[in-house]
Amino acid sequence: MDKTQFDLVVIGAGSTGENVADRAARGGLSVAVVENGLVGGDCSYWACMPSKALLRPGEALRAAEGVAGTAAAVSGALDVDAVLRRRDSFASGWDDSGQVEWLEGAGLVLVRGTGRITGEREVTVDTDGGGQQVLRARHAVAVCTGTEPLVPGIEGLREARPWTSKDATSAEAVPDSLVVIGGGVVACELATAFADLGAGVTVVARSGLLGSMEPFAGEAVVARLRERGVEVLLDASARRVTRDDGAVTVETDDGRRVVAAEVLVATGRRPRTGGLGLAAVGLAEDEYPEVDDTMRVVGSDWLYAVGDVNGRVLLTHQGKYQARAAGDVIAARAAGGVVDDAPWGLHVATADHRAVPQVVFSDPQVASVGLSSAAAREQGLNVSVAEFELGDVAGAGLHRDGYEGHACLVVDEDRSVVVGATFVGPDVAELLHAATIAVVGEVPLERLWHAVPAYPTMSEIWLRLLEAHGRPRSD
Amino acid sequence: MDKTQFDLVVIGAGSTGENVADRAARGGLSVAVVENGLVGGDCSYWACMPSKALLRPGEALRAAEGVAGTAAAVSGALDVDAVLRRRDSFASGWDDSGQVEWLEGAGLVLVRGTGRITGEREVTVDTDGGGQQVLRARHAVAVCTGTEPLVPGIEGLREARPWTSKDATSAEAVPDSLVVIGGGVVACELATAFADLGAGVTVVARSGLLGSMEPFAGEAVVARLRERGVEVLLDASARRVTRDDGAVTVETDDGRRVVAAEVLVATGRRPRTGGLGLAAVGLAEDEYPEVDDTMRVVGSDWLYAVGDVNGRVLLTHQGKYQARAAGDVIAARAAGGVVDDAPWGLHVATADHRAVPQVVFSDPQVASVGLSSAAAREQGLNVSVAEFELGDVAGAGLHRDGYEGHACLVVDEDRSVVVGATFVGPDVAELLHAATIAVVGEVPLERLWHAVPAYPTMSEIWLRLLEAHGRPRSD
Repeated sequence: MDKTQFDLVVIGAGSTGENVADRAARGGLSVAVVENGLVGGDCSYWACMPSKALLRPGEALRAAEGVAGTAAAVSGALDVDAVLRRRDSFASGWDDSGQVEWLEGAGLVLVRGTGRITGEREVTVDTDGGGQQVLRARHAVAVCTGTEPLVPGIEGLREARPWTSKDATSAEAVPDSLVVIGGGVVACELATAFADLGAGVTVVARSGLLGSMEPFAGEAVVARLRERGVEVLLDASARRVTRDDGAVTVETDDGRRVVAAEVLVATGRRPRTGGLGLAAVGLAEDEYPEVDDTMRVVGSDWLYAVGDVNGRVLLTHQGKYQARAAGDVIAARAAGGVVDDAPWGLHVATADHRAVPQVVFSDPQVASVGLSSAAAREQGLNVSVAEFELGDVAGAGLHRDGYEGHACLVVDEDRSVVVGATFVGPDVAELLHAATIAVVGEVPLERLWHAVPAYPTMSEIWLRLLEAHGRPRSD
Repeated sequence: MDKTQFDLVVIGAGSTGENVADRAARGGLSVAVVENGLVGGDCSYWACMPSKALLRPGEALRAAEGVAGTAAAVSGALDVDAVLRRRDSFASGWDDSGQVEWLEGAGLVLVRGTGRITGEREVTVDTDGGGQQVLRARHAVAVCTGTEPLVPGIEGLREARPWTSKDATSAEAVPDSLVVIGGGVVACELATAFADLGAGVTVVARSGLLGSMEPFAGEAVVARLRERGVEVLLDASARRVTRDDGAVTVETDDGRRVVAAEVLVATGRRPRTGGLGLAAVGLAEDEYPEVDDTMRVVGSDWLYAVGDVNGRVLLTHQGKYQARAAGDVIAARAAGGVVDDAPWGLHVATADHRAVPQVVFSDPQVASVGLSSAAAREQGLNVSVAEFELGDVAGAGLHRDGYEGHACLVVDEDRSVVVGATFVGPDVAELLHAATIAVVGEVPLERLWHAVPAYPTMSEIWLRLLEAHGRPRSD
């Protein structure tokens, strides 16, 4: 085999790139994967895995403390060092040899270095060894480089050496105090994690928390953070940041000052496209490349952008979903096979538009899929919203004393299907997939009445939500 | 209103009777409910609620012990007294005033006493006050009396004053040792609960545990019980039971002897139809009355048997499901309205045949819905079974160190739909409803690929199971 010619060249060996490559290889293609960091990408080392590893111990402890009879067996404090060591192990000690082994076992060729597009179906790699290698792709190039933290232009921020999510998830010690700038998922999760681990935490958010979700979600997280002693400043913009004597001071627009040992910036992401050579093929360097539902860049017949880098949805699982479609369609197109790109077909990522699930592992957890009620109304749907207190479900009360939570279903009345769902409360993460299947499957409400939740589980919220919606009578 | 004439008379105010009555009343009918015990029934006082209240503390403790960083905060022992008091509160102190309040608030008339059918549309009640009251039903009578424990004819068993599930779930103290005769759900759950609470437990089961489910379910429960020090005798029939000096001895067919402070019989249930007067309307007294899918007794136009008493499915949630159909259809028929009794219609309990969900709150938990692979093959379906180790899902590993679990999907290849699913492992209960919706919604596998599980939740088992099944290619 010519070591510089492949059917497909993938740039970026994160979870998305790995899945594009794997699916294409299973479809019979030869694949090279170019990576300038750790094989496995952000999710494995600096996002999902380490952040959830930091969050799970506090969650398990609270669950035990929340049950009379169990609470007495709990002394109340996490072993911070053990939590950090456990996190290290979930981040594989930031060693990618396990993933490299998988990748090579899957028949993929790993090229370590920084790849850039230097022509049609051509990727030039500045290899880690210091050399250069030109890879030619017979069929396609897939860019799967993800995103990087956006550090906003706040006065003094860069000079204050802020943490990004990468620093926070890989922290070797817990600072005494931490100020978090931002109000999205990363801000909520890391504020929760560091509060769990004993840091004094302040959150500075421009508006509320989790702004794109149902309002009750962010409100519940704010309330609980405050209950636990986290200071949450809402409608507060950081205006200036200074660092001296090891402490960081964040000043807000309205004159408040927060002093902490570290500052974490969690104000969004931008595509990791710098230096990728997109300009060489007529694309903007700093924008999310526009793709069709097969993840092919609009206007190209060989270039794909898959996962976070295309900006459709910045979530690991959705990137992997896109990757399965893209890997399969690249193989199908290479073979001259049938392309199944109708909505919900084999080769498209239709769910990106309709049913993106997301779990925020904050306290309480927030799990949502599909449209929020506001978004559904904006789309002009004939919407009804069914709501119910999760704490009034027997299974939730059994799960934890004084359980507090809330859930809603967003129903498109014209089609009689669920188009969105949100669950807020302790340990709601696993309630979500039922909603995802209902939304994706477009299961009519009339049929959902026959999907009986087992008693007494928390899933009985489904019955309560259907009752809140009301069941049509035949007469 | 004539206090002895109603549109509907319901015998039995358990969760099924309550729901039949409530739905019928919402449909405009006047309803009397006859109850000779506590309003709320077994589920509230001697089954689901107290048993789950006994099980949850151990489950929460194990979850905390299973996470490095949290484990150090756990001393290891439940506060047994607090667990029992918490159980008392979930059983409402065996006081039904809250449920009576709900019932009367719903516009239903409670008649306290023992009802029996004494003629067509006629129920005679021996009232708790010592009198007698004849209730006439304009439209229908619904029998919702549930089941009672079956105490098998083992030599000496009755004389040994065995516990039934009722005694076990309402126990005021934990015996030093307990022998459980039986291998079904009740046996598994109560063996787990009393082991959690410190009793020395022995299980004597005629074959394996949880025999109607996928074999890996019972095997996992056996293995874990043994690991925790519970003695599990399989393929062992109790031959003789004796009690002396406060201890009970159970001898098995093959000569083994188990001595314990108490013996719990969990060998099945039988319909609570004795004295109900079914013979007066031509039905056998000791059999489950045969009903159609609207829960109407076959051959009658006014008598319904709803919930456990009809023997279709002995589960609270399924009884409530039948109750919704029955209450609605009774109202519709009374009004001369449209009856929607096609499969999956408003007035039928189609899911009883296709999609009965069940969660066993043992350690590990077992959650299943629909057909087991064996049952699907027996039905002649063109079956494939996809299996995966739950412990290999990232979300499970994060949830608990060394997570062990297993899951399978049973697929009807001719229709390309899931017809059954089983999940075994710690905290799998809430994974089930997604499968129930997939089975009930008959969502094609091709569409299920678009239902993306959020990363890193345990629900990602869905992706792994779909991968294990294999995705069709278009080419």
